[in-house]
Amino acid sequence: MARLYHTQQDCPVARSLDIIGDRWTLLVVRDLLRGRHRFNDLLESCEGISPNLLSARLKALGDAAIVERSFYSEHPPRAEYHLTEKGRALGPAIRAIFEWGERYEPRLERGVTTR
Amino acid sequence: MARLYHTQQDCPVARSLDIIGDRWTLLVVRDLLRGRHRFNDLLESCEGISPNLLSARLKALGDAAIVERSFYSEHPPRAEYHLTEKGRALGPAIRAIFEWGERYEPRLERGVTTR
Repeated sequence: MARLYHTQQDCPVARSLDIIGDRWTLLVVRDLLRGRHRFNDLLESCEGISPNLLSARLKALGDAAIVERSFYSEHPPRAEYHLTEKGRALGPAIRAIFEWGERYEPRLERGVTTR
Repeated sequence: MARLYHTQQDCPVARSLDIIGDRWTLLVVRDLLRGRHRFNDLLESCEGISPNLLSARLKALGDAAIVERSFYSEHPPRAEYHLTEKGRALGPAIRAIFEWGERYEPRLERGVTTR
């Protein structure tokens, strides 16, 4: 990172974080990468997120062309969510965050570790 | 990412994002990686952050052992902030986010691009 940025807009990190810089957004992308595609599956695996918040995050991810919605049932309408190429390209960032967490933020529960 | 996680606590991504999952925290780490170490330099380069928010983020990063504070002047007291090994280990994640932003979130201003 040799360049100096005069405004946040000049910095690709800041531009990225404008889109993905909150906890839930990257957890939703994580779950989509892990093959969860339906609203209820995402709601369950993204533990602690509320339905309204998940809806809002999926909408924002759609607006950012990171997620595409398709319908697997017409009656009643049931949607699936899939990552676009741009969304799948977040894999390396999520992997790096995974590896950092595994190394430097071990589980707190007694007697159980992830390693 | 082959494992299934039953709780967020089981997932290293979620544990990491508990610490770094907001926009400003990673921007502060970015600037520390770029060699900004004094409060006012960080305030300036992390454009848009308020002094109170920067103080709070540096405190939280200290609590998480990502940042260490040292004093380069006693009278008046003046502090510098440096990344610990754990903090420097966020480099690959920030680099991945940088590369994603450079590729998929180009600058909005007319006639000027980062590539």
